[in-house]
Amino acid sequence: MKIGLAQQNYMIGDFKGNFEKMKTAIEEGINAKADLLVFSELCVCGYPPRDFLEFKHFIHECSNVIQRLGEIAGDQIAIIVGAPSENKKKDGKDLFNSAYFIENGKVKYIAHKALLPTYDVFDEYRYFEPGNEFDVVEFKGKKLAITVCEDIWDISDINPLYRIKPVVELAKKNPDVLINLSASPFSYKQARIRTEVVRKNAVEFNLPVFYCNTTGAQTELIFDGGSLVVASDGTVVDEMPYFEECVRFYEFTDHGSQITVYGEQSTVNRQQNKDEIKLIHDALVYGIKNYYQKLGFKKAILGLSGGVDSALVLVLAVRALGKENVLSVLMPSQFSSSHSVDDSLQLVKNLGSSHKIIPIKEVFNEYEKNLSPHFEGKPFDITEENLQARIRGNYLMALSNKFGYILLNTTNKSEAAVGYGTLYGDMCGGLAVLADVYKTQIYKLCRYINQDEEIIPEHILTKAPSAELRHDQKDSDSLPDYEILDKILFEYIENRLGPDEIEGLGFDEVLVTRVLQMVNRNEFKRHQMPPTLRVSPKAFGSGRRLPIVGKYLD
Amino acid sequence: MKIGLAQQNYMIGDFKGNFEKMKTAIEEGINAKADLLVFSELCVCGYPPRDFLEFKHFIHECSNVIQRLGEIAGDQIAIIVGAPSENKKKDGKDLFNSAYFIENGKVKYIAHKALLPTYDVFDEYRYFEPGNEFDVVEFKGKKLAITVCEDIWDISDINPLYRIKPVVELAKKNPDVLINLSASPFSYKQARIRTEVVRKNAVEFNLPVFYCNTTGAQTELIFDGGSLVVASDGTVVDEMPYFEECVRFYEFTDHGSQITVYGEQSTVNRQQNKDEIKLIHDALVYGIKNYYQKLGFKKAILGLSGGVDSALVLVLAVRALGKENVLSVLMPSQFSSSHSVDDSLQLVKNLGSSHKIIPIKEVFNEYEKNLSPHFEGKPFDITEENLQARIRGNYLMALSNKFGYILLNTTNKSEAAVGYGTLYGDMCGGLAVLADVYKTQIYKLCRYINQDEEIIPEHILTKAPSAELRHDQKDSDSLPDYEILDKILFEYIENRLGPDEIEGLGFDEVLVTRVLQMVNRNEFKRHQMPPTLRVSPKAFGSGRRLPIVGKYLD
Repeated sequence: MKIGLAQQNYMIGDFKGNFEKMKTAIEEGINAKADLLVFSELCVCGYPPRDFLEFKHFIHECSNVIQRLGEIAGDQIAIIVGAPSENKKKDGKDLFNSAYFIENGKVKYIAHKALLPTYDVFDEYRYFEPGNEFDVVEFKGKKLAITVCEDIWDISDINPLYRIKPVVELAKKNPDVLINLSASPFSYKQARIRTEVVRKNAVEFNLPVFYCNTTGAQTELIFDGGSLVVASDGTVVDEMPYFEECVRFYEFTDHGSQITVYGEQSTVNRQQNKDEIKLIHDALVYGIKNYYQKLGFKKAILGLSGGVDSALVLVLAVRALGKENVLSVLMPSQFSSSHSVDDSLQLVKNLGSSHKIIPIKEVFNEYEKNLSPHFEGKPFDITEENLQARIRGNYLMALSNKFGYILLNTTNKSEAAVGYGTLYGDMCGGLAVLADVYKTQIYKLCRYINQDEEIIPEHILTKAPSAELRHDQKDSDSLPDYEILDKILFEYIENRLGPDEIEGLGFDEVLVTRVLQMVNRNEFKRHQMPPTLRVSPKAFGSGRRLPIVGKYLD
Repeated sequence: MKIGLAQQNYMIGDFKGNFEKMKTAIEEGINAKADLLVFSELCVCGYPPRDFLEFKHFIHECSNVIQRLGEIAGDQIAIIVGAPSENKKKDGKDLFNSAYFIENGKVKYIAHKALLPTYDVFDEYRYFEPGNEFDVVEFKGKKLAITVCEDIWDISDINPLYRIKPVVELAKKNPDVLINLSASPFSYKQARIRTEVVRKNAVEFNLPVFYCNTTGAQTELIFDGGSLVVASDGTVVDEMPYFEECVRFYEFTDHGSQITVYGEQSTVNRQQNKDEIKLIHDALVYGIKNYYQKLGFKKAILGLSGGVDSALVLVLAVRALGKENVLSVLMPSQFSSSHSVDDSLQLVKNLGSSHKIIPIKEVFNEYEKNLSPHFEGKPFDITEENLQARIRGNYLMALSNKFGYILLNTTNKSEAAVGYGTLYGDMCGGLAVLADVYKTQIYKLCRYINQDEEIIPEHILTKAPSAELRHDQKDSDSLPDYEILDKILFEYIENRLGPDEIEGLGFDEVLVTRVLQMVNRNEFKRHQMPPTLRVSPKAFGSGRRLPIVGKYLD
């Protein structure tokens, strides 16, 4: 039997575009004389469709696409596509998250996702009723066990997240092959875990597994792809590339202990590079690229401060959009050091991209003149620091508005965590590129970029971080060293340890209390941040939901 | 049997404060010689605790409070308190959303919530395993059926949201009374629906119902209270006041067809006023008040434009915080009409609150001077409009930072829906007071405020709405009449009708398409808005989750 996987990049709600893309894959499948082509979870409407699922019109559009795909496939190829389906029973939510098996142009079977991830960035029980009936599909002498994403994931015997085990139920029907349609977002750990999960299913149930993931970024969520074909003995036959589309076909016989990649000789070492820093780099470039493409914008603008964060964003943006499409704006203040401008200019020169210089002093003075009668002689404080950041935000937004740029935000995860940034100032932007990357990881990314040649000037990587909003300011004046800060933040945010547990790891009690309070108190700032490209298992944004007003640990 | 309900205002994560508050109610219960005192859902930690539930330390703090409450109650009174509890089985999520029945100081029974709302603003299946065992509790010769919030709500036979019916299960055990612990947020429709739901349970199961709701606002979510006691024949014995705390006791005998309010003679007409405009008014005042109190701030600042939205916010803020705590800032531009300042000054005078005037022209000119070399001779456009709004935002934030004000945002729901506002300009603020109130409702609220005397100057209510960001601008230049716009928005947002269904109601096809596209395209602006006080059944914010980048209806 020849089975294909279509790892494609869909756009949420773009029924026409998604249909055309799937049609192309079906035609490729027909040309390759494949028996079956498998698409990814909710491919028809794009994942995650969120509350669009609450519109009957949206569901109706999904049905239309499914019917038209059936017509394209006809009797030449069978297909499995992901889309919502109607719950015809009286009880429970109105929809299922389903995989449609279509043969001879007709829907022959609909498999419903039983395990609905409702944690982190996932909200599936918000929309879907869990499937609770399990059966295999007979196709050309083989029994297909069709599952959707999470259905193959709850394999821990220690603390399973759900009460039922879909693959155990399906295994009772003696399937010949396990098929999974996924929309599994990237984090720098995910590719390793995913491979192990798919392998574990193959070995435990002694079945070949065809796992089709989506690719592409949907605002903050990046889907890497990395679709997998694993033989029944656990051998990884193929792992598709990350961050790109791929349609590929596989031939398997017997009970799936031998599978070959159609049209290719070698099946050795087809797994992808899983180096975490490289993955984060590639994910961020892909995230920026998809955001602009899908919005229909070409040009990015950013404020280049001379610091490491904006330098990194500039490099990533140039790689995503092309050097001709990224404008850097240097906005020195009276507190800026000369090297801030010099280092920035060197970076822009290295990249061959363009820049503007707009000092903020005159506008700042004008504000101060108008505010001084109201400030009652109070001294320079954080007000004036924020004001400078906001003037820069205004300049960037003015240029964006005038020329149709979209502003890239350069806040990093350490800053976002403790609130070291100015709302409506350096926290402006359409997309936060680095707000899921800790400061210490940012240096590693810069070193990765500079590994062959000095793209980011060395001085940017060696000088002490500073916001330069008052005389001789350093980040270390108000924050712990990033090496320590990032570790505490990681334990609190990624590992969700409480204060006592973090102190138990050897961190200073006073420092832990201070850091955790900073994180909790600054929820109000993060609430108004741009969407953040998610590259870690726990990013700020929809995957981390905390009260703005509360008193925990305070 | 004498049963009390404690309708209290908790703070999320404030274990000490919540304990003290509950202790006071228990002491009141002991003084009143009550048998049982019922608290609200998750009262121990405050509702909604969100991802704090993922911290073991947080759960441990909840357990501590429960133990200490048991010690306070001792053998003098039994209590039922809401808190998370551990799922001791291997399968499923780690926590239940539970009601602890405590007698003689010991936890005698824990009832687990079976129906977990996971829609709109609710995320309960994110945290909790649904309860699936049902039993009554024997107490002083009566059988208590203890339920948590949603467990009594799924009473529709037409399209029930869940597969099981907790009260049907409990009814099999022949209870004498139905008790419900709730945290049910306000909308202007909710009090009517709630009363009907509680009455329907009483009548259907022929049981008296003691329904205890929480009160207080948690950032954007406002809990009104309105706890209910309904006799087994469906008579509403009592409905507690909205937007305030209340601890009250009830005596009931036999099978609960007769219940009296302890210490009061009349049981006639104890239901609250449910006029929708009055409710919205009171909810907004309560929301502002709670936000400042719980954050530990006293003083509010806002930009007063001479328009109806900021006028209304000022009145509400003065009612919530006191006239001495609200500063209005008038920031006329070269495009402001003289009446904008005059009307604002009259309003401030009527209220006896303070104001400042800071014209924006000089700073605007300074920006223009610095930007003109970069603008390549391009004409005045939306860039300059936005710039003016952002200068105002900067002034307001500078005063906030210098003096410790929190900025109130004055965006209304119609504007927020179609993106008629400037990010980092008039969309700044800590709390969006009116972003769940349509423009047409805003006029009704103003009329309600002016019903006895002219507080808001009549001219503010009769002039044509204008942003005054360019010469002779009117909202109607770029938006349909609010009367029509608001109706289309309501069908799309509240009723979730698609374009074809809205057109079917008689609205112009071109207009509907345009409005729906504006709503979808401006998701990026709403994503960065301050939290919005929720007063409708479908507010922007956590209750409405849409993709930022997508192409639906576009």
